[in-house]
Amino acid sequence: MVDVNCDMGEGYGIYSFGNDELVMPYITQANIACGYHASDHNHMRRTVELAKKYGVKVGAHFSYPDMQGFGRRKLQISTDELTNCIIYQVGALKGFLDVAGIPLSHLKPHGALYGVAASDKSVAEAIAEVASFYRVPLFGLSNTFHETECMARNVTFKAEFFADLEYDDNGGLIISTVHEGVSVEDSVSRCIRAVTERVVSSENGRDLTVDIDTICIHSDTPNAPEVAKLLHSKLLEKKLLSNQVN
Amino acid sequence: MVDVNCDMGEGYGIYSFGNDELVMPYITQANIACGYHASDHNHMRRTVELAKKYGVKVGAHFSYPDMQGFGRRKLQISTDELTNCIIYQVGALKGFLDVAGIPLSHLKPHGALYGVAASDKSVAEAIAEVASFYRVPLFGLSNTFHETECMARNVTFKAEFFADLEYDDNGGLIISTVHEGVSVEDSVSRCIRAVTERVVSSENGRDLTVDIDTICIHSDTPNAPEVAKLLHSKLLEKKLLSNQVN
Amino acid sequence: MVDVNCDMGEGYGIYSFGNDELVMPYITQANIACGYHASDHNHMRRTVELAKKYGVKVGAHFSYPDMQGFGRRKLQISTDELTNCIIYQVGALKGFLDVAGIPLSHLKPHGALYGVAASDKSVAEAIAEVASFYRVPLFGLSNTFHETECMARNVTFKAEFFADLEYDDNGGLIISTVHEGVSVEDSVSRCIRAVTERVVSSENGRDLTVDIDTICIHSDTPNAPEVAKLLHSKLLEKKLLSNQVN
Amino acid sequence: MVDVNCDMGEGYGIYSFGNDELVMPYITQANIACGYHASDHNHMRRTVELAKKYGVKVGAHFSYPDMQGFGRRKLQISTDELTNCIIYQVGALKGFLDVAGIPLSHLKPHGALYGVAASDKSVAEAIAEVASFYRVPLFGLSNTFHETECMARNVTFKAEFFADLEYDDNGGLIISTVHEGVSVEDSVSRCIRAVTERVVSSENGRDLTVDIDTICIHSDTPNAPEVAKLLHSKLLEKKLLSNQVN
Repeated sequence: MVDVNCDMGEGYGIYSFGNDELVMPYITQANIACGYHASDHNHMRRTVELAKKYGVKVGAHFSYPDMQGFGRRKLQISTDELTNCIIYQVGALKGFLDVAGIPLSHLKPHGALYGVAASDKSVAEAIAEVASFYRVPLFGLSNTFHETECMARNVTFKAEFFADLEYDDNGGLIISTVHEGVSVEDSVSRCIRAVTERVVSSENGRDLTVDIDTICIHSDTPNAPEVAKLLHSKLLEKKLLSNQVN
Repeated sequence: MVDVNCDMGEGYGIYSFGNDELVMPYITQANIACGYHASDHNHMRRTVELAKKYGVKVGAHFSYPDMQGFGRRKLQISTDELTNCIIYQVGALKGFLDVAGIPLSHLKPHGALYGVAASDKSVAEAIAEVASFYRVPLFGLSNTFHETECMARNVTFKAEFFADLEYDDNGGLIISTVHEGVSVEDSVSRCIRAVTERVVSSENGRDLTVDIDTICIHSDTPNAPEVAKLLHSKLLEKKLLSNQVN
Repeated sequence: MVDVNCDMGEGYGIYSFGNDELVMPYITQANIACGYHASDHNHMRRTVELAKKYGVKVGAHFSYPDMQGFGRRKLQISTDELTNCIIYQVGALKGFLDVAGIPLSHLKPHGALYGVAASDKSVAEAIAEVASFYRVPLFGLSNTFHETECMARNVTFKAEFFADLEYDDNGGLIISTVHEGVSVEDSVSRCIRAVTERVVSSENGRDLTVDIDTICIHSDTPNAPEVAKLLHSKLLEKKLLSNQVN
Repeated sequence: MVDVNCDMGEGYGIYSFGNDELVMPYITQANIACGYHASDHNHMRRTVELAKKYGVKVGAHFSYPDMQGFGRRKLQISTDELTNCIIYQVGALKGFLDVAGIPLSHLKPHGALYGVAASDKSVAEAIAEVASFYRVPLFGLSNTFHETECMARNVTFKAEFFADLEYDDNGGLIISTVHEGVSVEDSVSRCIRAVTERVVSSENGRDLTVDIDTICIHSDTPNAPEVAKLLHSKLLEKKLLSNQVN
């Protein structure tokens, strides 16, 4: 059984980003931006309501404070301040969840913070502490501090597999800031193989073992809605989809 | 019995504002800024902890989104967006309250929004709706839409009396953006009279009837700490202070 | 002879807005956002370079400070502060113009400020004063304070005609925040008639006299590139296009 | 002959910072914040006018975009974006200088950017390129990339000496984010010795050779006005003060 998650609510003001309305029907978990790298009070309200409409679980997708850089720039910040950043963002999202009457499902760091937390123990500690406080799982990369710091404090860790990113021969993600479209069928086949065999083929064709609790789709990948729809259909067909969505 | 409240946590980044540490020991309710007109995740964390240390109740002091103008400028905003603004801010503050283990005590609009809500029914409705959702009292001006919109939806309304502002002959507040120091003794005597007799003398010496559930001190009034201290002492002495503070 | 202008550089961070690259080849004047309602240092740099590439004149498109609201919300601000807002924005744009080696061509207020200045003399005065200081024309609506305050201080006023907005029977613009696509041919025919006959048909088919020094196309109107291209072609053919563009 | 410079205009909105009005009469160069780490259009206008009143030269004190962190946090940013950041800030300040009728005197990076540029060649290059474009001197630390990148492109480099910071035994600055007050007399004596002998005593009493074209006073050091006043008086008395100020 596996979940499918997508970063959602990443517009800002009049700016839109991604295809939330087309993707939402086919995922089980929405990571909603909280106003630090993207989103604002209006986008958050709308996106929470959209998730509720489709029975999609909602987690907080928090970031360094960096709207102009979309949270993709490393910022030298103390661990205490980082903790405060996260509490502020999760709290703000919880405001909209409380009003909508749905619970906080999980936490997921965004962008540069996701990357830094994988390799910087103190940053991962701060994140895992907040997850521990809210008693929700943390989404992240297995075999990094994301995972170890969860284990150290009894926080449930959910390993992400990326539908639209390549892996190098050592299992490292090849992250690009522009998400290019991949073939819908290839992308979905790759996901199904990862779920059923726990194996993915690297950029050079080498088979790698992967952990996979939830599959991440990026909503700004050009064919994200098609990938989401076909993946949803295949996972349902094979009775592999986590049963949050009917 | 009366409470004493003060707007708190109104610094931002390296900027400080007011004398929170000197005033906090002598009040019973802190209205903490939520990052829209002042404050940020660090100031909010620190101010919530300071309030907790002194057993002071904490409410959300929310605003139009206007950091550069300190929330003192009217902004043309839809009622729906205003509602979203308030939920975002209250939610963010609740994050820090949850971590500190103390409840949300009340809501209070800030600056231009306070003024607009007094005379604009739809704005007051939006605010009262959020108070209704959180089941907490709203602080405001009696005999304005602050009060009527609370009554209309069973929200407890707490009438504010201002220790450091003058009233005109019609009972209207004379609001200045710079809070000048007033004589500590005069200010406190005026408050005590208001509490005990429900009367205040206008700028022209006319006696006015006032409602008073909580006395507001502005932390940036130069002698705010002295006023708070003497007022606290007098109210305790006369057994008039609400018993939140020992 | 007439110019064709378009609001440009209205993206922000990773967010794009409109079709600057498709429209720029067919206009003679670009109004570039200055970081208060849209744009940032990167978008401004890129947009100035794009304008330079096509020999398009560049003016400052300044706004109330309101990124989240795209400058479309009225903000209560003193005239002195408004003047400072405009100087800051024009100065910032001039930085990029100086580096590119091209002059500041004109000023144009954006969004809510455009509307407020049309009917509020003191706001129009502040704007015209800055245009007077920089000795550049101001774009605006004829028969409003836009025009009279320019005349009062020897600032050249350039009357805008809107390719994609309807006029009511009194000559008032019908402004919508979402710019719907209009038929390319109808839109261009309407512009050509306005240029050659100084007449436009209102929403109810009444002929109105119009002033027209420059035709404004909105880059976020869905078919803006097609309108710009056909309009450019027709104006060139009739030798009506101002000769900035070859 | 030596100049005395101070970081100025570092308030924001209602927040004040330092004692600009008390310090300005006693310095010869003001480094004015440009809205990225501090200041806004109002503070910039006021501070430029204050400098003009006292005949003080004005330079741009530019920063990473980081108002909440006061520009004291390192931000991972491309060199191209950094260049754009600087142009935006210098341009905005030049707007106010143009209106006041005074020229841009110099450039000085702020906070984390100052530190990064000292040791990162590409960052120093970007800064020196902008100084080269504006044909103004750059203030910085001698024997760092601040100096070498100026030399590489014929930009005048002005070595800063810090009145209120200690040096370690290797000549490195000991930078604290809170500027503690030092004895006024000691601070001034240290400056005079640096100017006349090109020598400063390190924290452990070791004599170090220093370059010194301009002495930097931080306006938020508690006794900054007293240091500025006495230093000004001593430098005038010894005919060591650059003759910008009478």
